[in-house]
Amino acid sequence: MAKDNKKKVEQITDMEVDFAQWYTDVCRKAELIDYSSIKGMFIYRPYGYAIWENIQAELDRRFKETGHENVYLPMLIPESLLQKEKDHVEGFAPECAWVTYGGSDPLEERYCIRPTSETLFCEHYKNVIHSHRDLPKLYNQWCSVLRWEKTSRPFLRHREFLWQEGHTMHADAEEARAETQQMLNIYADFLENVLAMPVVKGQKTDKEKFNGAEETYTVECMMHDHKALQSGTSHYFGDGFARAFDITFTGKDNTLHYPHQTSWGVSTRMIGGIIMTHGDNNGLVLPPRIAPIQAMVIPVAQHKEGVLEAASALLDRLKAAGIRARMDSSDQSMGWKAAEYEMKGVPLRVEIGPKDMEKNQCVLVRRDSGEKVFISLDELETAVPATLDAIHDGLYQRAKKNLEEHIFEAHSLEEAKALQAQHGGFIKTMWCGELACELKMKEEAGMTSRCIPFAQEHLGDTCPICGRAAKKMIYWGVAY
Amino acid sequence: MAKDNKKKVEQITDMEVDFAQWYTDVCRKAELIDYSSIKGMFIYRPYGYAIWENIQAELDRRFKETGHENVYLPMLIPESLLQKEKDHVEGFAPECAWVTYGGSDPLEERYCIRPTSETLFCEHYKNVIHSHRDLPKLYNQWCSVLRWEKTSRPFLRHREFLWQEGHTMHADAEEARAETQQMLNIYADFLENVLAMPVVKGQKTDKEKFNGAEETYTVECMMHDHKALQSGTSHYFGDGFARAFDITFTGKDNTLHYPHQTSWGVSTRMIGGIIMTHGDNNGLVLPPRIAPIQAMVIPVAQHKEGVLEAASALLDRLKAAGIRARMDSSDQSMGWKAAEYEMKGVPLRVEIGPKDMEKNQCVLVRRDSGEKVFISLDELETAVPATLDAIHDGLYQRAKKNLEEHIFEAHSLEEAKALQAQHGGFIKTMWCGELACELKMKEEAGMTSRCIPFAQEHLGDTCPICGRAAKKMIYWGVAY
Repeated sequence: MAKDNKKKVEQITDMEVDFAQWYTDVCRKAELIDYSSIKGMFIYRPYGYAIWENIQAELDRRFKETGHENVYLPMLIPESLLQKEKDHVEGFAPECAWVTYGGSDPLEERYCIRPTSETLFCEHYKNVIHSHRDLPKLYNQWCSVLRWEKTSRPFLRHREFLWQEGHTMHADAEEARAETQQMLNIYADFLENVLAMPVVKGQKTDKEKFNGAEETYTVECMMHDHKALQSGTSHYFGDGFARAFDITFTGKDNTLHYPHQTSWGVSTRMIGGIIMTHGDNNGLVLPPRIAPIQAMVIPVAQHKEGVLEAASALLDRLKAAGIRARMDSSDQSMGWKAAEYEMKGVPLRVEIGPKDMEKNQCVLVRRDSGEKVFISLDELETAVPATLDAIHDGLYQRAKKNLEEHIFEAHSLEEAKALQAQHGGFIKTMWCGELACELKMKEEAGMTSRCIPFAQEHLGDTCPICGRAAKKMIYWGVAY
Repeated sequence: MAKDNKKKVEQITDMEVDFAQWYTDVCRKAELIDYSSIKGMFIYRPYGYAIWENIQAELDRRFKETGHENVYLPMLIPESLLQKEKDHVEGFAPECAWVTYGGSDPLEERYCIRPTSETLFCEHYKNVIHSHRDLPKLYNQWCSVLRWEKTSRPFLRHREFLWQEGHTMHADAEEARAETQQMLNIYADFLENVLAMPVVKGQKTDKEKFNGAEETYTVECMMHDHKALQSGTSHYFGDGFARAFDITFTGKDNTLHYPHQTSWGVSTRMIGGIIMTHGDNNGLVLPPRIAPIQAMVIPVAQHKEGVLEAASALLDRLKAAGIRARMDSSDQSMGWKAAEYEMKGVPLRVEIGPKDMEKNQCVLVRRDSGEKVFISLDELETAVPATLDAIHDGLYQRAKKNLEEHIFEAHSLEEAKALQAQHGGFIKTMWCGELACELKMKEEAGMTSRCIPFAQEHLGDTCPICGRAAKKMIYWGVAY
């Protein structure tokens, strides 16, 4: 451990003073991330990467249970391949990193490092889809992608970031649309029941949808500072790419059809979401179901006879009960250890000392509330999982309260603007469906459309921006 | 399934006729791999990638049990960073793919896509290593790397391939050297006990060692065609990179020291090794401990009453017993199914039909030997794992026999050349340790040095190439 760890807490900016600085401080002091010599390209340190590994394991299991298979496609896309779908290339070409030399030889055609892999999947699908018996194809890829962004922030905006991208092909539109909903629901369930992040589910406007998609669905979360984080998206492409890439299959009717396509993805920005949903001025707060260390055992007065043995026995019992537990028996002070594991967001400290041993008990210290509870050692295997569940529930309820208390209804552009300026959060209004009104909201109130939520409400008959007939209720917000 | 699957077996070239074509046929027909539009960049299809996922899971567990942590570093290396260690850049620069544009802007400095990540790890280690308390650092990374090779072959030589690269830093040389041995032993154990591939362990010559390393250790395997496959390497760097990157730490003696470094890696070429060690003229043969599907349940006369139910019950019991089992109840013929799962190398087919049901039995058909065994359903949970273990042992013994029968002793260059031409395999000779003799062996007999095996023998006192005093026994061979 570095010598300056003791001062970690002092070094964190309060989130009320400077939220952006607080966020960066947590990313650094909790040892999640480091900077590299290339702007916008970050190093995922062991503790940060371990969170991603847990996210991967949980999602991968859900993907496989729903019939998806993992594949790996090349990281380079020939420029001519990227250009096959017009909307897609227009969206991505400006932020591509281009490879122009292989060794000392200039390439005949330049290749971009994948910003996303629709075109590569289509090229492969053309080789392997011929008959209705070859459908559906339900593929997923875990990889990194590159987007040459001008600005960057740890986890939220990297030039290179880790993600998964699902790409599926179906015999008809109905099945493909059902797939987009299924995957959106998997994301929502994962965010709520594993990351303790409540979501708003909805559809993106045409302006905000994915380049080349017909429809984009999203799960939107609200951060501590009442800004929005788009946390997962699911896209329906119709047969647009299939036509552009000439992918056809012989149907049961013995004639040729184009398959219908989806893609869906989440990325390491979810880790940014965890930090900004649950963190506090003492550092990171990790939801127990994703925490690399769920319980840190700390022997008290460990030089006294039998303490280390008792703590080790406790550690072994926790591990045997399926808890991700560790022990810190280093010579650091109790104060240092408390600050260290608070900074790292470990959900539970489990302390045991000579007095506890006499009473056949240990102390559980909750990271979320600071609450200390004495429990009998006889109850260890039930009390610890139950406390971890209680922490999860508490984090979820607190985040849900933050979300619900920061959704405001507006009936004019001025009112929307004032509400955003005063409270932040999501501003819900009716909307005519026109791009012009979306652009005006952005220009006047600084808000983008977050989604047209599935849970629609009737707030009035007209669009508060243009006064014409309203078609839908929409959520606006300031987003990361 | 494609219509032409029935003809798969007919479409495979016999390995005795054309080994290279047999190999490519298996990669394609077992649906492990597909070609992309960029030469040398391949698509890992679901079945091929599932083998890699199993390799990852097995190795990752072993890495973590020995205290290693996973990280993820950027895929791009600034040219100036790559140039910091002279031997390293000389080795890798000729095969780097270079990024020169970010979006529409030319970059001030060009970046290469990582061919390996020593330089990136060193840059990061400089940030996080300050005190002896920060050591050891035991990091590993799962990722893909790019090497712009002129030729390519599925799994064996890709321009982009998947691998893991461990990078560790230690307080002294002794600990670092112990790490290289520990990791080599983990690779050897994994190859032998999971992939059923016997290995020869040894040290590379200076000519064959990794660019920038002081010592390289290797595990070498022998393929069906008696060529060698370097299957895993472990490198000791001393403090060369640490000096080049100015990485120092304050020791317990309160003075500055350079840490000692290792790296070690295996890649998806292991899958090529599996194919060429165990495959036959009916296709792939997968070692049971790595097979994505260990047992394929096939109902016989499945239209008859109760057969599908009995097969399903059997499947459930196998899954509950921890076997990776699937069922094929499609309307394909029994002949098609037999050929299909032979091609895919599934270790065991488990067949059950009306007659078996009467007798409370099922049939186990072994992929390795074709042997059919009737077992009582009462013994299912013990007989299937035991048969899978027997298949593993049989594959290992067969491969070990192939290895042992193809190690030949030579006492002159002419003899070495003749033995290689006649039998292939490893030719063992004494060696003076000089590069000149190594180059002469390559030129005259077409063989490279495979390794100086740890298990040394005294075959004589002189180097058979130059006649001077011999220092070591060495293995020569033709390698992939």
